[in-house]
Amino acid sequence: MEYGSKLLENAVNEISLLPGIGKRSALRLALHLLNRPQTQTEDLSRALLSLRENSKNCKHCHTLSDTEICQICEDPRRDIGILCVVEDIRDVLAIEGTSEFRGRYHVLGGKISPMDGIGPSDLTIDSLISRVKTEGITELIFALSSTMEGDTTNFYIYKQLAGLSLKFSTIARGIAVGDELQYADEITLGRSISNRIPLDYDKG
Amino acid sequence: MEYGSKLLENAVNEISLLPGIGKRSALRLALHLLNRPQTQTEDLSRALLSLRENSKNCKHCHTLSDTEICQICEDPRRDIGILCVVEDIRDVLAIEGTSEFRGRYHVLGGKISPMDGIGPSDLTIDSLISRVKTEGITELIFALSSTMEGDTTNFYIYKQLAGLSLKFSTIARGIAVGDELQYADEITLGRSISNRIPLDYDKG
Repeated sequence: MEYGSKLLENAVNEISLLPGIGKRSALRLALHLLNRPQTQTEDLSRALLSLRENSKNCKHCHTLSDTEICQICEDPRRDIGILCVVEDIRDVLAIEGTSEFRGRYHVLGGKISPMDGIGPSDLTIDSLISRVKTEGITELIFALSSTMEGDTTNFYIYKQLAGLSLKFSTIARGIAVGDELQYADEITLGRSISNRIPLDYDKG
Repeated sequence: MEYGSKLLENAVNEISLLPGIGKRSALRLALHLLNRPQTQTEDLSRALLSLRENSKNCKHCHTLSDTEICQICEDPRRDIGILCVVEDIRDVLAIEGTSEFRGRYHVLGGKISPMDGIGPSDLTIDSLISRVKTEGITELIFALSSTMEGDTTNFYIYKQLAGLSLKFSTIARGIAVGDELQYADEITLGRSISNRIPLDYDKG
Protein backbone atom coordinates (compact mmCIF):
# COMPACT_ATOMS: atom_id res chain seq x y z
CA MET A 1 0.00 0.00 0.00
CA GLU A 2 1.78 3.03 -1.32
CA TYR A 3 -0.21 5.52 0.79
CA GLY A 4 -0.32 3.60 4.07
CA SER A 5 -4.12 3.82 3.82
CA LYS A 6 -6.38 1.86 1.51
CA LEU A 7 -9.05 4.56 1.78
CA LEU A 8 -6.63 7.26 0.70
CA GLU A 9 -5.25 5.08 -2.08
CA ASN A 10 -8.75 4.44 -3.47
CA ALA A 11 -9.63 8.12 -3.39
CA VAL A 12 -6.37 9.11 -5.09
CA ASN A 13 -6.84 6.45 -7.77
CA GLU A 14 -10.39 7.56 -8.54
CA ILE A 15 -9.53 11.27 -8.60
CA SER A 16 -6.54 10.69 -10.87
CA LEU A 17 -8.81 9.07 -13.47
CA LEU A 18 -10.01 12.61 -14.24
CA PRO A 19 -8.29 14.30 -17.19
CA GLY A 20 -5.28 16.44 -16.36
CA ILE A 21 -5.05 15.31 -12.74
CA GLY A 22 -2.04 13.18 -11.80
CA LYS A 23 -1.46 11.16 -8.64
CA ARG A 24 0.23 14.06 -6.86
CA SER A 25 -2.59 16.53 -7.53
CA ALA A 26 -5.12 13.84 -6.62
CA LEU A 27 -3.40 13.36 -3.26
CA ARG A 28 -3.49 17.11 -2.66
CA LEU A 29 -7.23 17.23 -3.45
CA ALA A 30 -7.99 14.23 -1.22
CA LEU A 31 -6.07 15.75 1.71
CA HIS A 32 -7.82 19.07 1.11
CA LEU A 33 -11.23 17.40 1.47
CA LEU A 34 -10.04 15.75 4.70
CA ASN A 35 -9.20 19.17 6.12
CA ARG A 36 -12.62 20.59 5.26
CA PRO A 37 -15.99 19.90 6.92
CA GLN A 38 -17.52 16.57 5.94
CA THR A 39 -20.47 18.40 4.37
CA GLN A 40 -18.21 19.65 1.57
CA THR A 41 -17.35 16.09 0.52
CA GLU A 42 -21.02 15.12 0.79
CA ASP A 43 -22.14 18.09 -1.31
CA LEU A 44 -19.50 17.34 -3.95
CA SER A 45 -20.43 13.66 -4.19
CA ARG A 46 -24.13 14.43 -4.32
CA ALA A 47 -23.68 17.06 -7.05
CA LEU A 48 -21.63 14.69 -9.23
CA LEU A 49 -24.02 11.76 -8.79
CA SER A 50 -27.07 13.91 -9.37
CA LEU A 51 -25.58 15.39 -12.54
CA ARG A 52 -24.68 11.94 -13.86
CA GLU A 53 -28.01 10.33 -12.97
CA ASN A 54 -30.51 13.08 -13.74
CA SER A 55 -29.16 15.21 -16.56
CA LYS A 56 -30.67 14.63 -19.98
CA ASN A 57 -29.94 15.68 -23.51
CA CYS A 58 -32.50 18.06 -25.01
CA LYS A 59 -34.77 16.11 -27.37
CA HIS A 60 -34.36 18.78 -30.05
CA CYS A 61 -30.83 20.15 -29.95
CA HIS A 62 -29.15 17.43 -27.80
CA THR A 63 -27.47 19.89 -25.45
CA LEU A 64 -27.21 19.00 -21.77
CA SER A 65 -30.45 19.88 -20.02
CA ASP A 66 -32.31 19.27 -16.77
CA THR A 67 -35.54 18.96 -18.74
CA GLU A 68 -36.75 17.07 -21.82
CA ILE A 69 -36.48 20.21 -23.90
CA CYS A 70 -33.80 22.79 -23.06
CA GLN A 71 -34.44 26.42 -22.16
CA ILE A 72 -33.08 27.71 -25.46
CA CYS A 73 -35.27 25.43 -27.62
CA GLU A 74 -38.29 26.38 -25.51
CA ASP A 75 -37.63 30.11 -25.69
CA PRO A 76 -40.26 31.63 -28.03
CA ARG A 77 -38.07 34.70 -28.65
CA ARG A 78 -35.39 32.69 -30.49
CA ASP A 79 -35.29 32.75 -34.28
CA ILE A 80 -36.39 29.23 -35.21
CA GLY A 81 -35.09 29.53 -38.77
CA ILE A 82 -31.38 29.54 -37.89
CA LEU A 83 -29.44 26.61 -36.42
CA CYS A 84 -25.87 26.86 -35.19
CA VAL A 85 -24.08 23.50 -35.39
CA VAL A 86 -21.62 22.98 -32.51
CA GLU A 87 -19.62 20.17 -30.98
CA ASP A 88 -20.66 20.24 -27.32
CA ILE A 89 -22.36 22.28 -24.63
CA ARG A 90 -19.21 24.33 -23.98
CA ASP A 91 -19.57 25.85 -27.44
CA VAL A 92 -23.21 26.66 -26.70
CA LEU A 93 -22.18 28.38 -23.45
CA ALA A 94 -19.41 30.31 -25.23
CA ILE A 95 -21.70 31.57 -27.99
CA GLU A 96 -24.52 32.38 -25.54
CA GLY A 97 -21.96 34.41 -23.60
CA THR A 98 -21.60 36.78 -26.56
CA SER A 99 -25.36 37.56 -26.75
CA GLU A 100 -24.80 37.88 -30.53
CA PHE A 101 -26.82 34.86 -31.63
CA ARG A 102 -30.59 34.65 -31.39
CA GLY A 103 -31.15 31.40 -33.29
CA ARG A 104 -31.05 27.91 -31.83
CA TYR A 105 -28.33 25.24 -31.64
CA HIS A 106 -27.68 21.69 -32.71
CA VAL A 107 -25.12 19.84 -30.58
CA LEU A 108 -23.39 17.09 -32.55
CA GLY A 109 -21.66 15.51 -29.57
CA GLY A 110 -18.29 15.43 -31.35
CA LYS A 111 -16.73 15.51 -34.81
CA ILE A 112 -16.32 12.80 -37.42
CA SER A 113 -12.92 11.31 -36.64
CA PRO A 114 -12.07 7.94 -38.18
CA MET A 115 -8.81 7.88 -36.18
CA ASP A 116 -10.82 7.88 -32.95
CA GLY A 117 -13.46 5.53 -34.35
CA ILE A 118 -16.12 8.25 -34.47
CA GLY A 119 -18.33 8.01 -37.54
CA PRO A 120 -21.42 9.99 -38.59
CA SER A 121 -23.72 7.52 -36.81
CA ASP A 122 -22.02 8.26 -33.47
CA LEU A 123 -23.09 11.89 -33.74
CA THR A 124 -26.54 13.50 -33.90
CA ILE A 125 -26.28 14.14 -37.66
CA ASP A 126 -29.43 12.17 -38.58
CA SER A 127 -31.38 14.22 -36.08
CA LEU A 128 -29.92 17.44 -37.57
CA ILE A 129 -30.97 16.44 -41.08
CA SER A 130 -34.47 15.60 -39.94
CA ARG A 131 -34.69 18.94 -38.08
CA VAL A 132 -33.62 20.87 -41.18
CA LYS A 133 -36.25 19.09 -43.25
CA THR A 134 -39.14 19.43 -40.79
CA GLU A 135 -38.53 22.61 -38.77
CA GLY A 136 -38.35 25.10 -41.64
CA ILE A 137 -34.67 25.90 -41.13
CA THR A 138 -33.35 28.53 -43.55
CA GLU A 139 -29.74 28.91 -42.42
CA LEU A 140 -27.17 26.54 -40.94
CA ILE A 141 -24.12 28.09 -39.25
CA PHE A 142 -21.16 25.75 -38.83
CA ALA A 143 -19.24 26.55 -35.64
CA LEU A 144 -17.03 23.47 -35.32
CA SER A 145 -13.32 23.85 -34.66
CA SER A 146 -11.29 24.45 -37.82
CA THR A 147 -9.40 21.15 -37.78
CA MET A 148 -9.36 18.38 -40.34
CA GLU A 149 -12.11 16.62 -38.34
CA GLY A 150 -14.21 19.78 -38.12
CA ASP A 151 -13.89 20.43 -41.86
CA THR A 152 -14.76 16.79 -42.64
CA THR A 153 -17.86 17.00 -40.47
CA ASN A 154 -18.98 20.27 -42.09
CA PHE A 155 -18.52 18.76 -45.54
CA TYR A 156 -20.37 15.55 -44.66
CA ILE A 157 -23.37 17.48 -43.34
CA TYR A 158 -23.28 19.84 -46.34
CA LYS A 159 -23.39 16.88 -48.74
CA GLN A 160 -26.30 15.29 -46.87
CA LEU A 161 -28.32 18.48 -47.22
CA ALA A 162 -27.32 19.38 -50.79
CA GLY A 163 -30.34 20.25 -52.93
CA LEU A 164 -32.39 21.80 -50.14
CA SER A 165 -32.94 25.54 -50.31
CA LEU A 166 -30.75 26.33 -47.33
CA LYS A 167 -28.13 28.96 -46.64
CA PHE A 168 -24.86 27.64 -45.20
CA SER A 169 -22.39 29.78 -43.34
CA THR A 170 -19.42 29.32 -41.06
CA ILE A 171 -18.21 31.53 -38.25
CA ALA A 172 -15.56 34.07 -39.28
CA ARG A 173 -11.91 33.18 -38.68
CA GLY A 174 -9.45 36.01 -38.34
CA ILE A 175 -7.22 37.97 -36.04
CA ALA A 176 -8.75 38.19 -32.57
CA VAL A 177 -9.96 41.62 -31.51
CA GLY A 178 -7.06 43.37 -29.78
CA ASP A 179 -4.39 40.98 -31.13
CA GLU A 180 -1.37 42.27 -33.02
CA LEU A 181 -0.81 41.10 -36.60
CA GLN A 182 2.85 40.23 -36.06
CA TYR A 183 1.96 37.51 -33.54
CA ALA A 184 -0.83 35.89 -35.59
CA ASP A 185 -0.22 32.53 -37.29
CA GLU A 186 0.00 32.58 -41.08
CA ILE A 187 -3.16 30.58 -41.76
CA THR A 188 -5.32 32.83 -39.59
CA LEU A 189 -3.80 36.01 -41.04
CA GLY A 190 -4.20 34.62 -44.56
CA ARG A 191 -7.86 33.85 -43.96
CA SER A 192 -8.50 37.26 -42.42
CA ILE A 193 -7.15 38.85 -45.61
CA SER A 194 -8.97 36.64 -48.12
CA ASN A 195 -12.22 37.04 -46.13
CA ARG A 196 -11.77 40.79 -45.68
CA ILE A 197 -14.87 42.82 -44.90
CA PRO A 198 -15.99 45.87 -46.93
CA LEU A 199 -15.46 49.05 -44.95
CA ASP A 200 -17.70 52.02 -45.57
CA TYR A 201 -17.64 54.80 -42.99
CA ASP A 202 -20.54 56.58 -44.67
CA LYS A 203 -22.85 53.64 -44.00
CA GLY A 204 -21.70 53.70 -40.36
CA MET B 1 -28.64 30.04 -14.88
CA GLU B 2 -25.25 30.48 -16.46
CA TYR B 3 -24.95 26.84 -17.59
CA GLY B 4 -28.51 26.28 -18.80
CA SER B 5 -28.66 23.41 -16.31
CA LYS B 6 -28.96 23.63 -12.54
CA LEU B 7 -27.43 20.15 -12.18
CA LEU B 8 -24.36 21.15 -14.18
CA GLU B 9 -24.08 24.46 -12.34
CA ASN B 10 -24.14 22.70 -8.96
CA ALA B 11 -21.50 20.20 -10.02
CA VAL B 12 -19.23 22.93 -11.43
CA ASN B 13 -19.62 25.02 -8.26
CA GLU B 14 -18.74 22.10 -5.99
CA ILE B 15 -15.78 20.96 -8.08
CA SER B 16 -14.38 24.49 -8.30
CA LEU B 17 -14.24 24.69 -4.47
CA LEU B 18 -11.23 22.37 -4.74
CA PRO B 19 -7.85 24.11 -4.66
CA GLY B 20 -6.34 25.00 -8.05
CA ILE B 21 -9.50 24.18 -10.02
CA GLY B 22 -11.32 27.10 -11.63
CA LYS B 23 -14.79 27.16 -13.16
CA ARG B 24 -13.51 26.28 -16.62
CA SER B 25 -11.58 23.22 -15.46
CA ALA B 26 -14.51 22.22 -13.27
CA LEU B 27 -16.80 22.31 -16.32
CA ARG B 28 -14.34 20.15 -18.25
CA LEU B 29 -14.24 17.59 -15.41
CA ALA B 30 -18.04 17.53 -15.07
CA LEU B 31 -18.51 16.99 -18.83
CA HIS B 32 -15.82 14.30 -18.75
CA LEU B 33 -17.76 12.37 -16.11
CA LEU B 34 -20.94 12.70 -18.22
CA ASN B 35 -19.12 11.06 -21.12
CA ARG B 36 -17.93 8.13 -18.99
CA PRO B 37 -19.95 5.19 -17.63
CA GLN B 38 -22.04 6.08 -14.60
CA THR B 39 -20.03 3.62 -12.50
CA GLN B 40 -17.02 5.92 -12.68
CA THR B 41 -18.94 8.76 -11.02
CA GLU B 42 -20.32 6.33 -8.45
CA ASP B 43 -16.86 4.94 -7.67
CA LEU B 44 -15.42 8.43 -7.33
CA SER B 45 -18.18 9.64 -5.02
CA ARG B 46 -17.99 6.50 -2.89
CA ALA B 47 -14.20 6.72 -2.58
CA LEU B 48 -14.34 10.38 -1.47
CA LEU B 49 -17.15 9.81 1.02
CA SER B 50 -15.55 6.69 2.41
CA LEU B 51 -12.22 8.46 2.87
CA ARG B 52 -13.87 11.41 4.61
CA GLU B 53 -16.10 9.29 6.86
CA ASN B 54 -13.86 6.38 7.75
CA SER B 55 -10.27 7.54 7.80
CA LYS B 56 -8.73 8.19 11.20
CA ASN B 57 -5.61 9.75 12.55
CA CYS B 58 -3.17 7.29 14.11
CA LYS B 59 -3.44 7.53 17.93
CA HIS B 60 0.33 7.68 18.25
CA CYS B 61 1.76 9.67 15.34
CA HIS B 62 -1.46 11.33 14.05
CA THR B 63 -0.84 10.39 10.43
CA LEU B 64 -3.82 9.44 8.28
CA SER B 65 -4.68 5.79 8.83
CA ASP B 66 -7.45 3.27 8.20
CA THR B 67 -6.85 1.81 11.67
CA GLU B 68 -6.51 3.18 15.20
CA ILE B 69 -2.74 2.74 15.03
CA CYS B 70 -0.97 3.14 11.70
CA GLN B 71 1.15 0.50 10.00
CA ILE B 72 4.40 2.33 10.68
CA CYS B 73 3.75 2.71 14.42
CA GLU B 74 2.73 -0.95 14.60
CA ASP B 75 5.78 -2.20 12.71
CA PRO B 76 8.09 -3.93 15.26
CA ARG B 77 11.10 -3.49 12.96
CA ARG B 78 11.07 0.32 13.25
CA ASP B 79 13.55 2.01 15.60
CA ILE B 80 11.30 3.28 18.39
CA GLY B 81 13.96 5.67 19.73
CA ILE B 82 13.88 8.09 16.79
CA LEU B 83 10.99 10.36 15.86
CA CYS B 84 10.86 12.41 12.69
CA VAL B 85 8.65 15.51 13.10
CA VAL B 86 6.75 16.37 9.92
CA GLU B 87 3.89 18.59 8.85
CA ASP B 88 1.51 16.18 7.16
CA ILE B 89 1.13 12.73 5.62
CA ARG B 90 2.67 13.84 2.32
CA ASP B 91 5.99 14.34 4.13
CA VAL B 92 5.66 10.85 5.63
CA LEU B 93 5.04 9.39 2.15
CA ALA B 94 7.98 11.32 0.70
CA ILE B 95 10.42 10.15 3.40
CA GLU B 96 9.11 6.57 3.28
CA GLY B 97 9.76 6.67 -0.47
CA THR B 98 13.48 7.08 0.19
CA SER B 99 13.72 3.92 2.36
CA GLU B 100 16.42 5.81 4.31
CA PHE B 101 14.55 6.25 7.58
CA ARG B 102 13.77 3.38 9.95
CA GLY B 103 12.44 5.36 12.90
CA ARG B 104 8.87 6.54 13.38
CA TYR B 105 7.07 9.81 12.68
CA HIS B 106 5.13 12.49 14.45
CA VAL B 107 2.69 14.42 12.24
CA LEU B 108 2.06 17.93 13.57
CA GLY B 109 -0.80 18.72 11.22
CA GLY B 110 0.69 22.09 10.26
CA LYS B 111 3.13 24.72 11.43
CA ILE B 112 2.80 27.48 14.00
CA SER B 113 1.61 30.45 11.97
CA PRO B 114 0.14 33.41 13.86
CA MET B 115 -0.75 35.05 10.52
CA ASP B 116 -3.09 32.13 9.72
CA GLY B 117 -4.31 31.88 13.32
CA ILE B 118 -2.52 28.58 13.93
CA GLY B 119 -1.02 28.36 17.40
CA PRO B 120 0.74 25.50 19.20
CA SER B 121 -2.57 24.20 20.59
CA ASP B 122 -3.90 23.66 17.03
CA LEU B 123 -1.10 21.20 16.34
CA THR B 124 -0.21 17.88 17.97
CA ILE B 125 2.69 19.37 19.94
CA ASP B 126 1.35 18.35 23.36
CA SER B 127 1.08 14.79 22.13
CA LEU B 128 4.66 14.97 20.80
CA ILE B 129 6.00 16.17 24.15
CA SER B 130 4.17 13.43 26.00
CA ARG B 131 5.51 10.83 23.52
CA VAL B 132 9.08 12.05 24.00
CA LYS B 133 8.71 11.81 27.76
CA THR B 134 7.02 8.38 27.90
CA GLU B 135 8.24 6.42 24.87
CA GLY B 136 11.98 6.59 25.52
CA ILE B 137 12.75 8.78 22.52
CA THR B 138 16.46 9.54 22.12
CA GLU B 139 16.50 11.59 18.93
CA LEU B 140 14.10 14.06 17.35
CA ILE B 141 14.60 14.89 13.65
CA PHE B 142 12.93 18.10 12.49
CA ALA B 143 11.76 17.79 8.88
CA LEU B 144 9.51 20.83 8.56
CA SER B 145 9.85 23.17 5.61
CA SER B 146 12.57 25.77 6.07
CA THR B 147 10.29 28.80 6.27
CA MET B 148 9.81 31.29 9.08
CA GLU B 149 6.85 29.21 10.29
CA GLY B 150 8.83 25.97 10.14
CA ASP B 151 11.74 27.50 12.06
CA THR B 152 9.36 28.96 14.66
CA THR B 153 7.74 25.58 15.15
CA ASN B 154 11.10 23.83 15.51
CA PHE B 155 12.22 26.40 18.08
CA TYR B 156 8.97 26.18 20.06
CA ILE B 157 9.22 22.40 20.32
CA TYR B 158 12.92 22.62 21.17
CA LYS B 159 12.17 25.01 24.04
CA GLN B 160 9.40 22.78 25.36
CA LEU B 161 11.78 19.82 25.53
CA ALA B 162 14.86 21.68 26.78
CA GLY B 163 16.50 19.93 29.72
CA LEU B 164 15.65 16.39 28.62
CA SER B 165 18.52 14.21 27.47
CA LEU B 166 17.52 14.21 23.83
CA LYS B 167 19.43 14.62 20.60
CA PHE B 168 17.94 17.12 18.15
CA SER B 169 18.70 17.15 14.45
CA THR B 170 17.28 18.63 11.29
CA ILE B 171 17.35 17.26 7.77
CA ALA B 172 20.27 18.48 5.66
CA ARG B 173 19.67 21.43 3.33
CA GLY B 174 21.93 21.75 0.34
CA ILE B 175 22.27 21.48 -3.39
CA ALA B 176 20.02 18.71 -4.73
CA VAL B 177 21.80 15.66 -6.11
CA GLY B 178 22.42 16.26 -9.82
CA ASP B 179 21.79 20.03 -9.63
CA GLU B 180 24.36 22.51 -10.86
CA LEU B 181 25.82 25.06 -8.44
CA GLN B 182 25.28 28.03 -10.75
CA TYR B 183 21.50 27.60 -10.64
CA ALA B 184 21.19 27.16 -6.86
CA ASP B 185 19.76 29.97 -4.75
CA GLU B 186 22.23 31.76 -2.48
CA ILE B 187 20.75 30.64 0.84
CA THR B 188 20.81 26.96 -0.13
CA LEU B 189 24.33 27.19 -1.53
CA GLY B 190 25.47 29.10 1.57
CA ARG B 191 24.04 26.43 3.86
CA SER B 192 25.57 23.63 1.85
CA ILE B 193 28.98 25.25 2.33
CA SER B 194 28.65 26.06 6.02
CA ASN B 195 27.30 22.54 6.68
CA ARG B 196 29.92 20.83 4.51
CA ILE B 197 30.56 17.14 5.13
CA PRO B 198 34.02 15.69 5.83
CA LEU B 199 35.25 13.68 2.87
CA ASP B 200 37.60 10.79 3.46
CA TYR B 201 38.07 8.38 0.61
CA ASP B 202 40.06 6.00 2.81
CA LYS B 203 37.08 5.45 5.07
CA GLY B 204 34.92 4.73 2.03
